[in-house]
Amino acid sequence: MVEKLVEVGYLFEFYGKLLTEKQYEVVDLYYIEDLSLQEIGDTMNVTRQGIYDLLKRAEQNLYKFEENLGLIDRYFSNNEKIKRIMYLAEDIEGNLDIDSNLKNSKEIIEITKDILKEIDS
Amino acid sequence: MVEKLVEVGYLFEFYGKLLTEKQYEVVDLYYIEDLSLQEIGDTMNVTRQGIYDLLKRAEQNLYKFEENLGLIDRYFSNNEKIKRIMYLAEDIEGNLDIDSNLKNSKEIIEITKDILKEIDS
Repeated sequence: MVEKLVEVGYLFEFYGKLLTEKQYEVVDLYYIEDLSLQEIGDTMNVTRQGIYDLLKRAEQNLYKFEENLGLIDRYFSNNEKIKRIMYLAEDIEGNLDIDSNLKNSKEIIEITKDILKEIDS
Repeated sequence: MVEKLVEVGYLFEFYGKLLTEKQYEVVDLYYIEDLSLQEIGDTMNVTRQGIYDLLKRAEQNLYKFEENLGLIDRYFSNNEKIKRIMYLAEDIEGNLDIDSNLKNSKEIIEITKDILKEIDS
């Protein structure tokens, strides 16, 4: 459950704006505000079952968005690479050894090529 | 018109998979395959007006996706920054001047911080 909470949390952060207004509200109240289905039903004047259906539909849409656009996957992959580039540049900055700096800059070039290929695909 | 062609081309590349099957087909046939509304209508067995409406709706959706997710905007911004990092690393690789390399690595650190901030927002 915690895992699903985190997963839907990410999906909602990346794709929430693509949901309908009602779907957005239900996901927000359930996953972010931590209300129960019954409480959300009372707030939105919908049956508990209606809220459950809305929520399932919203989740399906969120997973479909990731399946089609893959932004979260790319996010984690690129985030790691950019951090590695930053680490290498910091190493160059604090390092007077030419050979080691050449090695670092070569790795930076490889990683940037890799990122460019990925964001262009 | 050429400008719009390019614009919708990008939008379609980034968000095409989020369209309905019919919307996807119409945009593909009109903007990529360069068929006329009448020709598409004949192919899909829909009136010319029906195709026009489908196309307008699809375009509106594509623009709305960009408004909500801004992927194309980020794409161009990050693409440019990554290329700049690559250029700086190449300069470090071919350069024995320590001061110049320190300057380059400082700029790489700044740009990577900038990218990390942007992809995290």
